[in-house]
Amino acid sequence: MLETAFVEHLFYLVPAGSLFALVYALFLFLSVKKMDEGSRQMQEIAQAIRTGTRAYLGRQYKGVGIFFAILFIILLILSFQGLVPTPVPFAFLTGGLFSGLAGFIGMTNATMANVRTANAARKSLNLGLRAAFNSGAVMGLTVVGLGLLDLSIWYFLLKGLGYSIEQITSTMLNFGMGASSMALFARVGGGIFTKAADVGADLVGKVEVGIPEDDPRNPAVIADNVGDNVGDVAGMGADLYESYVGSIVATSALAITAFNQAGLQFQGVLVPLIIAAVGVLASIIGTWFVRSDERVEQAVLLKALRRGVNISAVLIAVLAFMIIKYVLGPNYLGVYGAILTGLIAGVVIGLLTEFFTSANYKPTRNVAEQATTGAATVIISGLSVGMLSTVLPVVVVAVAIFASFALAGGLQNFNMGLYGIAISAVGMLSTLGITLATDAYGPVADNAGGIAEMADLPEEVRERTDALDSLGNTTAATGKGFAIGSAALTALALIAAYVEQVQVIKPDFQFNLSITNPPVLIGLFVGGMLPFLFSAMAMQAVGRAAQKIVLEVRRQFKEIAGLLEGTAKPDYATCVDICTRAAQKEMILPALSAIIVPIIIGLLLGVNAVAGLLAGSTVCGFMLAVMMANSGGAWDNAKKYIEEGNHGGKGSEAHKAAVVGDTVGDPFKDTAGPSLNILIKLTSMVSVVFAGFILAFSLIK
Amino acid sequence: MLETAFVEHLFYLVPAGSLFALVYALFLFLSVKKMDEGSRQMQEIAQAIRTGTRAYLGRQYKGVGIFFAILFIILLILSFQGLVPTPVPFAFLTGGLFSGLAGFIGMTNATMANVRTANAARKSLNLGLRAAFNSGAVMGLTVVGLGLLDLSIWYFLLKGLGYSIEQITSTMLNFGMGASSMALFARVGGGIFTKAADVGADLVGKVEVGIPEDDPRNPAVIADNVGDNVGDVAGMGADLYESYVGSIVATSALAITAFNQAGLQFQGVLVPLIIAAVGVLASIIGTWFVRSDERVEQAVLLKALRRGVNISAVLIAVLAFMIIKYVLGPNYLGVYGAILTGLIAGVVIGLLTEFFTSANYKPTRNVAEQATTGAATVIISGLSVGMLSTVLPVVVVAVAIFASFALAGGLQNFNMGLYGIAISAVGMLSTLGITLATDAYGPVADNAGGIAEMADLPEEVRERTDALDSLGNTTAATGKGFAIGSAALTALALIAAYVEQVQVIKPDFQFNLSITNPPVLIGLFVGGMLPFLFSAMAMQAVGRAAQKIVLEVRRQFKEIAGLLEGTAKPDYATCVDICTRAAQKEMILPALSAIIVPIIIGLLLGVNAVAGLLAGSTVCGFMLAVMMANSGGAWDNAKKYIEEGNHGGKGSEAHKAAVVGDTVGDPFKDTAGPSLNILIKLTSMVSVVFAGFILAFSLIK
Repeated sequence: MLETAFVEHLFYLVPAGSLFALVYALFLFLSVKKMDEGSRQMQEIAQAIRTGTRAYLGRQYKGVGIFFAILFIILLILSFQGLVPTPVPFAFLTGGLFSGLAGFIGMTNATMANVRTANAARKSLNLGLRAAFNSGAVMGLTVVGLGLLDLSIWYFLLKGLGYSIEQITSTMLNFGMGASSMALFARVGGGIFTKAADVGADLVGKVEVGIPEDDPRNPAVIADNVGDNVGDVAGMGADLYESYVGSIVATSALAITAFNQAGLQFQGVLVPLIIAAVGVLASIIGTWFVRSDERVEQAVLLKALRRGVNISAVLIAVLAFMIIKYVLGPNYLGVYGAILTGLIAGVVIGLLTEFFTSANYKPTRNVAEQATTGAATVIISGLSVGMLSTVLPVVVVAVAIFASFALAGGLQNFNMGLYGIAISAVGMLSTLGITLATDAYGPVADNAGGIAEMADLPEEVRERTDALDSLGNTTAATGKGFAIGSAALTALALIAAYVEQVQVIKPDFQFNLSITNPPVLIGLFVGGMLPFLFSAMAMQAVGRAAQKIVLEVRRQFKEIAGLLEGTAKPDYATCVDICTRAAQKEMILPALSAIIVPIIIGLLLGVNAVAGLLAGSTVCGFMLAVMMANSGGAWDNAKKYIEEGNHGGKGSEAHKAAVVGDTVGDPFKDTAGPSLNILIKLTSMVSVVFAGFILAFSLIK
Repeated sequence: MLETAFVEHLFYLVPAGSLFALVYALFLFLSVKKMDEGSRQMQEIAQAIRTGTRAYLGRQYKGVGIFFAILFIILLILSFQGLVPTPVPFAFLTGGLFSGLAGFIGMTNATMANVRTANAARKSLNLGLRAAFNSGAVMGLTVVGLGLLDLSIWYFLLKGLGYSIEQITSTMLNFGMGASSMALFARVGGGIFTKAADVGADLVGKVEVGIPEDDPRNPAVIADNVGDNVGDVAGMGADLYESYVGSIVATSALAITAFNQAGLQFQGVLVPLIIAAVGVLASIIGTWFVRSDERVEQAVLLKALRRGVNISAVLIAVLAFMIIKYVLGPNYLGVYGAILTGLIAGVVIGLLTEFFTSANYKPTRNVAEQATTGAATVIISGLSVGMLSTVLPVVVVAVAIFASFALAGGLQNFNMGLYGIAISAVGMLSTLGITLATDAYGPVADNAGGIAEMADLPEEVRERTDALDSLGNTTAATGKGFAIGSAALTALALIAAYVEQVQVIKPDFQFNLSITNPPVLIGLFVGGMLPFLFSAMAMQAVGRAAQKIVLEVRRQFKEIAGLLEGTAKPDYATCVDICTRAAQKEMILPALSAIIVPIIIGLLLGVNAVAGLLAGSTVCGFMLAVMMANSGGAWDNAKKYIEEGNHGGKGSEAHKAAVVGDTVGDPFKDTAGPSLNILIKLTSMVSVVFAGFILAFSLIK
């Protein structure tokens, strides 16, 4: 076991890991950028997507900027009143800034890599895979690097200001709210954008006019491709940035009471940070093993990606063991068990998601079969699959909660157990650099496929980009499961941290968190209702925005002469603009509800009710998120399965029914579902930040 | 305030109320039976429905009998081990018996009244309304009467055996499980039967062969009409029987600790019983005011029904005031406030349900409008409406919890507050005699419409039966809201009672019901997952059963010569038989899951986890039940709204899209949704009964 004095130096691993991640990301970025962009037509298409993405981002940052300005002022006032720690308003800004920056870099990178991936696929499958995957890794490493950078800066700053380790952790716990808010806006806004464009493009282009998907004559086709980037790249990145930082600060905050008696507080605080830092190394090494031969087979490609992820996981498992053994000492190997629990749970939930949403397995095949008796049976069976698919992830989460609690020693020392639950989330997220890379890979490959289609590249190339794209769908499913699982564990860690935070602010506060206490019960109900409210708003927003796109696309086909014949060019920018405006407008209400409801409940019924609300929203949010993601995934792949020639193939009645399922699934899996991950964390973050305010002004104490 | 000695005599009001209800029900039954059955053709159709219903009931009771026998033996063994009170196995049987009896009487009565209602409508609208409503009242009063009878018998028996009042209430708390199990089987089995028949009949009859609904040539038409009875009459009756008895015994059990210091335990126990007893009087008086003139207008008819319900509510409000004032004394008028809270909450949730599901209001109109852009948008908007419709009921429940807790004095004496929450459920259910009458009225009117159609009665008569049927749809919506609301409050009372029960069994048990305690958290997750699992199983069961009906109906149309021409008769019995078998087979797994999961969680993680599970299943079950009921209702009425000639009317593309929505809604609103009410109560009941067993054998204490 290492001396405390030496352990202090280990903190430098955190900025080192951050810099390593960012530099390596820059290296990958430049290596992708060096690649050839292909023909002039390809470059033009890529430029259009890039311009659209920039336009969207610019507007989003403007809108979000206003929100951040208002909340900054509110937090400033609260800090003058002593109701939040002084650094919080500023940390709120840096959290938002870094999360936004991660999104910006990820998108710049993705819109640069898509066309290069398409071009690389002209030469070989492996080159295409490497281009797309490396650009995914840029995103993954940027998220991780910026997260660690934010933590390092504030740690040194607060230490320099003379804060004690307790003060540092309890202050840093407040920092998640900025990142969370930014993430929610990115996820909801991006989710609305992408599905409005997708649904709108399909409804007129495919159904009414009868042109293929990704046809350049469709005025919404660029918006559709822009949407892949703003929804899946920026949204997913911001979501996981938040889980990553959130799980680390929650674990650190919980270390204070957990290691109080043992006198290992500093070590306990440091462990999640160091594990995250060495996770960078593990992730980067993992990326080196992602390479494929030229067989255009799903299984081969998937194996290539999985190899990288698995190597990273094994590496971190070894490194974490040494960290625990030498930093916390051999008495705390149970904490290592908790980390492993999280690592394994993340993988298992991902695999379960794949089982329920891949056409290789029974559930999705059943949905496809139900398409033969019409749309109604497709919908019923898809919803059933989604509902049924909550069972095993709940079992996994339950086992993870209990195992990490018990292994860390929670049965003897309750607070150690809470630390164990929190650090299991850190374990799950420690290889985020590479897991997010496999995720962010998807939209790049998807875009590459779109560009290949629009630029009319040879059949052989499109076969390759299709294979890459289809792999992206699988990783997206696994990634969604992983995002939900990590969000649930992070949210639980945050609930525990919230309770500690209240105790820090008001040490004599008497909690009554019993589920028979009416404020807690009411909190459970209101919290349970939030995900339903939120999902309803998000789905209706997609519906309204898609309607606008439908009208615009119809207008262009009517008014622009020669558009259908290919002699005139559509006005792509207007569709992008409509989606952008709609997304910006529609994201406000759902996002605000996540922030305001916990505050209102707190003011009326006190902190017990807030804790109940967090538990309720975590439980119901988890169920609904899993259900929506998996129903959506099953519908999507059931449709693709039929398109491959099963149950009558493309154009059959079964196919039409499956398209209905897929369209219902779009807002499920890409708008409402993934936003719920952020909702359950943001409510906790808001509760932490406003804890002092609620304690001071709530009607019931 | 009355002397305790005198108050003891007030208990006689309970058997008196019971007898009054049963005798009055018999009187109504005979008065309906006296009415003319109409033409021979009508009598034949009615006979076919009757035979089908009997066949179903016979088989159901046989299947359920086996389940009851097994569980009786298990309980008997547990009682020999001293793990459950000795009377419990027998009370389990009487609970099941009385609940089953209520269903049997209700169905016998409904299948007798349907044809008489149709025939009465030949003479006048008011006569038709009276016939259908009176038969509904038979059901309502039978449920109430049998419930009070069961309670009276056991009360006197246990008292005769020398049990103290504490022992009586804690023993009687165990009695709900029999009724709950029977209710779940009735609801799930009936729900599967009715929707399999409905969907199957429509898919082949309406869509493939092109004959109208309720056409006698359709082999599944009788099964469809049988289904209305077994699903809506028996299922709803058993559901509310259970809420009624459950809320009363939970309140009585909670009275023991609540009134411990005040020395008013006996009074506290008695109050819910007396209120229920005088509720019989209020309900019967209310029924006298249900009468209409001859205007075939929805609003007029609705007013007629509402008048009766409102008069009953006002009466009970007055009577309850006097009961509280004279039995508990003027210091306890806050308890009266809690009763009023429940009474009002029931009405408000009912009205909210109507708002979200009636085509007179915006939400359902929006769903209808979305039908113009196809099935996908209908589904998305219907699901959004369902999700959004959870918000206000949650607010109502939250306000009801807090108000009844605070009014009853919970802020000073926690246990009084829990008593307040429980008695608010009793208040909500006190007028069950008449609220259930307006509910059970629906299927009778629906059947009457079917008989009028099948027997080809004149246009004018069918206009009247259509008006009566359409009124039934509105009351069904309100009734569903009421059933869910009362189930939620009853479940909360049962959770509190469960906690007390554990304390009675093991006075030194140290609870840790905090939501940060991992077993509680795990319980919340597993409990939250149960409604999703349950709904998925129920929906898939309907799908499978409907598929079988589709094949059978197709077979008959192919093999029976002259069937379509009307020269040959279809084989109704086989369709009834298929539905019966399917319902019996498919109801087992969902029902067992509700019983086994709480026991497994208890054995693994102890009673804290069980309490968490109950809270989780109540919260998620409530959300899902409201969502499914209201999505289903909105789809149903959106379809009807289009059929009235809006958005293109019958046969338009919009209509086809709306039919998809309606078909998805069928298992939502009539199978899975309402079964969830029972699920959340049954899990509590099972937990109460097995509390001693769990305390003795759980791995974690």
